[in-house]
Amino acid sequence: MSYELYYWSGIQGRGEFVRMALEDAGADYLDIALQPEGDEKLMAFMERDDLWRPPLAPPFLRDGDLVVAQTAAILMHLGDSLGLSSKNEAERLWLQQIQLTIADVVGEAHDAHHPLGADLYYEDQKPEARRRAKHFREERIPKFLGWFDKILARNPRGDAYLVGAEATYADLSLFQLVEGLLYAFPKATKKRLAKAPRVAALRQRIAQRPRLRAYLESGRRIPFNEQGIFRHYAELDP
Amino acid sequence: MSYELYYWSGIQGRGEFVRMALEDAGADYLDIALQPEGDEKLMAFMERDDLWRPPLAPPFLRDGDLVVAQTAAILMHLGDSLGLSSKNEAERLWLQQIQLTIADVVGEAHDAHHPLGADLYYEDQKPEARRRAKHFREERIPKFLGWFDKILARNPRGDAYLVGAEATYADLSLFQLVEGLLYAFPKATKKRLAKAPRVAALRQRIAQRPRLRAYLESGRRIPFNEQGIFRHYAELDP
Repeated sequence: MSYELYYWSGIQGRGEFVRMALEDAGADYLDIALQPEGDEKLMAFMERDDLWRPPLAPPFLRDGDLVVAQTAAILMHLGDSLGLSSKNEAERLWLQQIQLTIADVVGEAHDAHHPLGADLYYEDQKPEARRRAKHFREERIPKFLGWFDKILARNPRGDAYLVGAEATYADLSLFQLVEGLLYAFPKATKKRLAKAPRVAALRQRIAQRPRLRAYLESGRRIPFNEQGIFRHYAELDP
Repeated sequence: MSYELYYWSGIQGRGEFVRMALEDAGADYLDIALQPEGDEKLMAFMERDDLWRPPLAPPFLRDGDLVVAQTAAILMHLGDSLGLSSKNEAERLWLQQIQLTIADVVGEAHDAHHPLGADLYYEDQKPEARRRAKHFREERIPKFLGWFDKILARNPRGDAYLVGAEATYADLSLFQLVEGLLYAFPKATKKRLAKAPRVAALRQRIAQRPRLRAYLESGRRIPFNEQGIFRHYAELDP
């Protein structure tokens, strides 16, 4: 069965967290962002008035008749189909909790360069971004990476993965989050990763998964850039 | 069976979305925020080193041996036990999507008064808050309320509730969201509610639910105030 992933072209953004799962599982999917006039197709789909469950924003996934938006909900759905979740109810809930925490970090990483809102360019909010990024680097990155390291340490099935003894969608998302933070705030993130050795090891472990590695090395992965969520501005990571 | 809800004392905050479900269902729960030294109890619990699944932040819920954090995950869990969810898998996923969108609005409502981060007082970021709140009032409130109205209109079971023909946890959360927006941005919100009549009607419908109404009229509900997420500053709603 084939999926369709809808996301803006030209950036990894939140869509990349969904791609991680699809690519790691070797799923058959059409990436609308890579199609001709992908953005137009995305917008046309969102404006359809025959959808019972219209998405508010991308990313969203079509799985037959089902349309699912919100990254964490998409991954909860895909996790079951792609073998990247758990069958245990308490573990499934814990997975979702972790994923929602990753989503919180992603939102804060965006706001570090756009504290006044997405309607202004970065160039029009540079002093404010500097202030907010300082807080993100010094307080938030340590807090979040510290928590991920702690929950890895406490996993009764070992510290290789976040939940259970196999990789789940949350591990793939944590990998992508760390990649994004390393791109945007390399100095601050490297410093904190040294104090979160289990997170650093998980990142290496996930990068070695054969299908994911093939994707990362392929030309299909859109490079990080300064239109996405994770942006590198030297002045925000002094 | 009795639940324990952990949240900071003195504010409604994200904990109130959980209270909505517990109160509406008439569930037996201990509200730690209302206990003597509630904040100390909360912090002591979070610091326990025998928890497999330690919460990063409140609110979190204890349900026997299970500890669940992240508002949307707590509500997904409670929805099943309290009869405020659906048994249909596609509807459950749609419910969670809606809840995550409500969580996005809540985050943005907070950032409207704290755009530079939670480490500074509001008084130290007033000009920035004014800029961000303008964007929130003029672009974001209309977008979100418009979407909620649209999905109500498209519910094949009628526009009384968001999903299916009965109230779910997402309806209770949408009620609480609208209450919060009306408190914080009364002028902007009233104006937009006039264009989202189904959302306005849902708010009235939920307010009439007997157990919820009893809670809202009881002295137990903490009033909105300027320490919470929804804060009223006249200059942010001119």
